Amino acid sequence: MRATPLPPGDLAPRGATIEPFYAGLIGEQAAALARAGRVVVPMHYGQPTQGAPATAVAAAERALARAGQSVPLGYYESPDLKARIARHYRETYGVEVTPARILLTMGASAALVATFAALFAPGDRIALARPGYPAYRNALAALGREIVEVDCGPEAGFRLTPAALARLPATPHGLVCASPANPTGAVLHRDELAALLAYCRERGIRFVSDEIYHGITYAGRATCALELDDEAIVVNSFSKYFRMPGWRLGWLVVPERFAAGLSNYLINFFLTPPAISQHAALGAFDDPAALEAALPAYARNRGLLLDALPRLGFRDVVAPEGAFYFYVGVGHWTDDSLEFCRRMLDATGVSAAPGIDFDPVHGGRTIRFSFAVTTPEVERAIEALAAWLPRA
Amino acid sequence: MRATPLPPGDLAPRGATIEPFYAGLIGEQAAALARAGRVVVPMHYGQPTQGAPATAVAAAERALARAGQSVPLGYYESPDLKARIARHYRETYGVEVTPARILLTMGASAALVATFAALFAPGDRIALARPGYPAYRNALAALGREIVEVDCGPEAGFRLTPAALARLPATPHGLVCASPANPTGAVLHRDELAALLAYCRERGIRFVSDEIYHGITYAGRATCALELDDEAIVVNSFSKYFRMPGWRLGWLVVPERFAAGLSNYLINFFLTPPAISQHAALGAFDDPAALEAALPAYARNRGLLLDALPRLGFRDVVAPEGAFYFYVGVGHWTDDSLEFCRRMLDATGVSAAPGIDFDPVHGGRTIRFSFAVTTPEVERAIEALAAWLPRA
Repeated sequence: MRATPLPPGDLAPRGATIEPFYAGLIGEQAAALARAGRVVVPMHYGQPTQGAPATAVAAAERALARAGQSVPLGYYESPDLKARIARHYRETYGVEVTPARILLTMGASAALVATFAALFAPGDRIALARPGYPAYRNALAALGREIVEVDCGPEAGFRLTPAALARLPATPHGLVCASPANPTGAVLHRDELAALLAYCRERGIRFVSDEIYHGITYAGRATCALELDDEAIVVNSFSKYFRMPGWRLGWLVVPERFAAGLSNYLINFFLTPPAISQHAALGAFDDPAALEAALPAYARNRGLLLDALPRLGFRDVVAPEGAFYFYVGVGHWTDDSLEFCRRMLDATGVSAAPGIDFDPVHGGRTIRFSFAVTTPEVERAIEALAAWLPRA
Repeated sequence: MRATPLPPGDLAPRGATIEPFYAGLIGEQAAALARAGRVVVPMHYGQPTQGAPATAVAAAERALARAGQSVPLGYYESPDLKARIARHYRETYGVEVTPARILLTMGASAALVATFAALFAPGDRIALARPGYPAYRNALAALGREIVEVDCGPEAGFRLTPAALARLPATPHGLVCASPANPTGAVLHRDELAALLAYCRERGIRFVSDEIYHGITYAGRATCALELDDEAIVVNSFSKYFRMPGWRLGWLVVPERFAAGLSNYLINFFLTPPAISQHAALGAFDDPAALEAALPAYARNRGLLLDALPRLGFRDVVAPEGAFYFYVGVGHWTDDSLEFCRRMLDATGVSAAPGIDFDPVHGGRTIRFSFAVTTPEVERAIEALAAWLPRA
């Protein structure tokens, strides 16, 4: 027996419609071009192309060698990894964090979803920098939390400030702050972060500090919110500095009294993070030099692009102080950044993320380049763009 | 500078408080006993102890060997795995599913969260069998969907029926149906599943079919909802039959017109599933005999327990037709199943999951044993329980 299909409308989805990552459409186009034999320089996604450090891979191999026996790759939360992350806070930031405050998550994504669901109520107002990472906006919308965007364009040096928050019509319940920021690479200096934290603390605004790009900075290390305020919710991940994006492992640091409540969300939404990734991540800490090894290439690529992008005609080129992105203006060429990225990729083999991922208002006139690729790829990209772009 | 901490109340979590997995508390106690040198028979968690098949481990090893190069373990959605899953539907159920209808997820958990968020609106009524898997209830509550529990106790043979749905005060917007079911092992026969699907279809009730225990049955294969109704949302995973729980990989099969919308939720909530797990899962399909190899032990363990549990004094022992659980009555001994599980573990080294995980109403008087352990472990458990339990 086979059922007669219902007319689609009768079982239409009833949840909110949320946006895709438009960079994903560019990714599909890039993959199709690569399959057709074209050379592509993949600057659309924010992922290190260098791969996991050798000590991480070796730790994963050791875990696999035991995988047939007694469920070493079953549901798992590594106490050793929590202890190692705690040590990382002590060594890197001089902050004491008990392992009980650390929650392992399936990447920063799951950490954000659990945080948004557990710490905010439906209808709560959450402030975000615009431009900003699209999943903040989309996940909050999916969960029925209200998004309050704070304009942080090039004229503001891409910076979130207490003054900008003070101009909001109502005090938000929360703020998601990323430093270094995606897509702009802006880094809040210690005094700027302190001012923001103080502003939020005085008003009972929950501070969510997305520190996923920590470790990737070009003028001294970034300040961790926990250096200034024990009440901050810190989100981090092994995807960027640790170069393990596809391993899907991140973490939260939360006030100890919230740990059990947030853990209930994590277990019911996701169970535990991948076991093999936890073993690998522990290994990743074993060779600090290997972690640092990616940074000289990022710095070189950043220098090349900082020189080339204005020459190529891109506007509002601001030197990123962290992460591995340039977020630049193309409004003199287009107001449809997705279409522009499609044409650019097709003509030059260089992929970038359209600004509409990051800024629903002005993003039609911006694009983001990731420079977490090799230096020869950056050189090839500059050359190909020079041949294609109209003279500035 | 260090901030003066706020009084906790000022920044209290504003989201709904949701329940933990109480089995997790038993798991912690079991781990502590094991660290203290006690022999523990771990029957509290629903995970195969046999580990991933060798072809899966070998595929993971091959992926690792390439891990230093060109981001093979970056953000990833394997087209080969989607095609292989489509073939699995053709070969196992005679159902044609295009790869475009298959979405890869971080375990069944993420599949359920995305489904609940995308297909239902806040306040929608979702019917669930009680007893049932705790994350259905807890995740729906976290998302602000209304839970409608349908009593499916031993007197109903643990079965969800159209008659039980018809007794609800209002037509629900959706139904989550698991066959084989957790915690009871009940399997809906083809005609029973067809009747439920028809009931839901006629009333516009969205049918979510959790098929995570497919492949583990004791009297013929389970029917896939897609054999009867193309509109069903099917959730599945590599955690049970494929013995890869800690690899965190599952999938959804959805009507093609919903695929893009659901994918937007998945990407914003989770990005992509673990890359290495996708490689391993593809390998898991390579040796069907290795997948089937766990079943004789499950059948032996089931037989031993079916004989022993009534003799030991447990009540309402129903032979499970699928999965690897016995869900039994202990109400003549206790009305606090968590406390009972704690005492039993302490006295015997045998861990079970307290019924309150599965049934908030009657679960104080039930517990669940998982028999996805070795046969010698089951024998040891029976012996230890016989020495400890009061005579029936």
